[in-house]
Amino acid sequence: MLVLSNEEIARLLTMEDCMAALEPMYRDYVDARAMLSPRLDNIMPTAHEGGYYAFKQMCGGWPAQGVQALRINSDIVTHPVMGGKPRRVKQPLAGGRWVGLVLLFSTDTGQLLAMFPDGVMQRMRVGAASGLGLKHLARENVSTLALIGAGWQAGAQLMAARAVRNFTEVRVYSPRRESREAFAAGNEGVRAVDSVEACVEGADVILAATSSMVPVIEPKWLRPGVHIGCIKSEEIDGEVLDRCDRVFVHDRKQRKHLSNVMPGTPNLSEERVRGWWAEPARSGRYPDLGELLAERAPGRERADEITCFANNVGIGLQFAAAGALALRKAREQGVGKELPDEWFTEDVHP
Amino acid sequence: MLVLSNEEIARLLTMEDCMAALEPMYRDYVDARAMLSPRLDNIMPTAHEGGYYAFKQMCGGWPAQGVQALRINSDIVTHPVMGGKPRRVKQPLAGGRWVGLVLLFSTDTGQLLAMFPDGVMQRMRVGAASGLGLKHLARENVSTLALIGAGWQAGAQLMAARAVRNFTEVRVYSPRRESREAFAAGNEGVRAVDSVEACVEGADVILAATSSMVPVIEPKWLRPGVHIGCIKSEEIDGEVLDRCDRVFVHDRKQRKHLSNVMPGTPNLSEERVRGWWAEPARSGRYPDLGELLAERAPGRERADEITCFANNVGIGLQFAAAGALALRKAREQGVGKELPDEWFTEDVHP
Repeated sequence: MLVLSNEEIARLLTMEDCMAALEPMYRDYVDARAMLSPRLDNIMPTAHEGGYYAFKQMCGGWPAQGVQALRINSDIVTHPVMGGKPRRVKQPLAGGRWVGLVLLFSTDTGQLLAMFPDGVMQRMRVGAASGLGLKHLARENVSTLALIGAGWQAGAQLMAARAVRNFTEVRVYSPRRESREAFAAGNEGVRAVDSVEACVEGADVILAATSSMVPVIEPKWLRPGVHIGCIKSEEIDGEVLDRCDRVFVHDRKQRKHLSNVMPGTPNLSEERVRGWWAEPARSGRYPDLGELLAERAPGRERADEITCFANNVGIGLQFAAAGALALRKAREQGVGKELPDEWFTEDVHP
Repeated sequence: MLVLSNEEIARLLTMEDCMAALEPMYRDYVDARAMLSPRLDNIMPTAHEGGYYAFKQMCGGWPAQGVQALRINSDIVTHPVMGGKPRRVKQPLAGGRWVGLVLLFSTDTGQLLAMFPDGVMQRMRVGAASGLGLKHLARENVSTLALIGAGWQAGAQLMAARAVRNFTEVRVYSPRRESREAFAAGNEGVRAVDSVEACVEGADVILAATSSMVPVIEPKWLRPGVHIGCIKSEEIDGEVLDRCDRVFVHDRKQRKHLSNVMPGTPNLSEERVRGWWAEPARSGRYPDLGELLAERAPGRERADEITCFANNVGIGLQFAAAGALALRKAREQGVGKELPDEWFTEDVHP
């Protein structure tokens, strides 16, 4: 059983490889040759003052790669008020650290193959899905990219966008000057701008990667031919979607979010699904990324269309596809810590 | 993060302790102070000829003990025909071993506290649930116990029954002479008998612990005052249930079994829920073990009533309760292998 670290996963996976690993998985998923379970939560009280415990998992199996993945998040969540607004904050109470794990099992032997933290792969999978949407939806001749958000996720959006198109100009905006300038300083060829309007002005592609609970893309910015993307459904609203000619979501099944909340759990206002994503009449209307990649739903047909990849909620299958790749590379390169398989198998079966 | 083995779990947990740990959990569960997710499956093709891959999980959290448990089974299943009947056989393809795992997380810090194989605890939890049913349903003055089945699970049924009542006579029957004689030889005070009729004749308590897919308890055996129990719903049928005055099931929610099967998976006939347990009109009619223990549903009221604990499908919460106990004892006694927590936590959170 191979234990990998976030640092090792980061060295093993390039965005290009990750996208190449995910693309055939989406096509198999559309044809029911890969399967997943929608996210399942157990949310309950915790000893930590004012917080709650959120156990979340998603899983998915891809027989073509022989891998079943299970991704687990085990968080203490609080909602402190910052700048007048409640924020959703995961408290690092596990010795000052957070707990997110991926387990990979073999669909051919049953064996637990690997365990690793989810953080780096989560970021790669968000970027890769956005990149695959962009690859199949944006015009070939785009040149200007606007990034709204300058955090860790914005970096993966940039990598993914650059992996599939040549941008001659990349601008970044984030409300905090230090954040946007640090992002520009850390990413060659990126320019920080002082307003969101200056960021999106004339852009061919607009990507939002924020933690905002309210929309950050305005309908009036959407000129003909633009492609937009976001990583959270809250970053856009119905008015934006109605201005788009083609909208894709990551996976419609994820609307059926199986939240399971213990009565008396405090401060749960932020755990619910909000906005257009919570409305089946709207969210159920848009095809999936898989249908786009498998050519079951048409992508861009004219240069002046406005296209959108509107929701990027994770699915367990992404961890099966990216996980199988990371595992293969780790074995090729001798990376990671091997633990005895006897610890994770048994000689009895009930 | 503590890694425990089946052998260590077996040394740490007595049946008495296990029952004492589970009883308050059931009462909290009835009052929504403990929560679970029903079993979730991903079933799909495998490379192993004629088999399929079954990934099954159940989870549950109990804030009073600060533990969230996740139990995983990752099996290659085949259906060879043995003695003219198809049997469901889990193939030990993980280096000649099987894969069942329990993960325990802290609901107070999020941390992965422990990992261990599920086998020994699974057997203990089946026995403990039967024992709790027996404790609250059987007459106080029972003296004869009939065991149908002489396998590993039958041993746990015997331990549990003896933990709550004094039996002066214990008989065991199993179709294979060697099995029943080996069981009698291995368990003091148990007598192997040559027919099932000789086993149940005049018994005060009849417990079935078989792998049978067809009923093994006959309605005509049920004389007034008897208590019966089984570990699989297939071991009894509607006619037996209709002869009982009081029937309890382990957890009605487990009827909502979230099976998720990939089209084209071979040989799935045995994976479905069968018989009375698959009929909501019947299985939904009986109260839960938790309701019995919390005194929300009356147990035995007269000596001549026939009582039954009819279904013992596992719930994730049993692993939270027994797991919290095993973990506490392991720490007190310095048992198990400690792995660095840094391997199972992270300094990023997406």
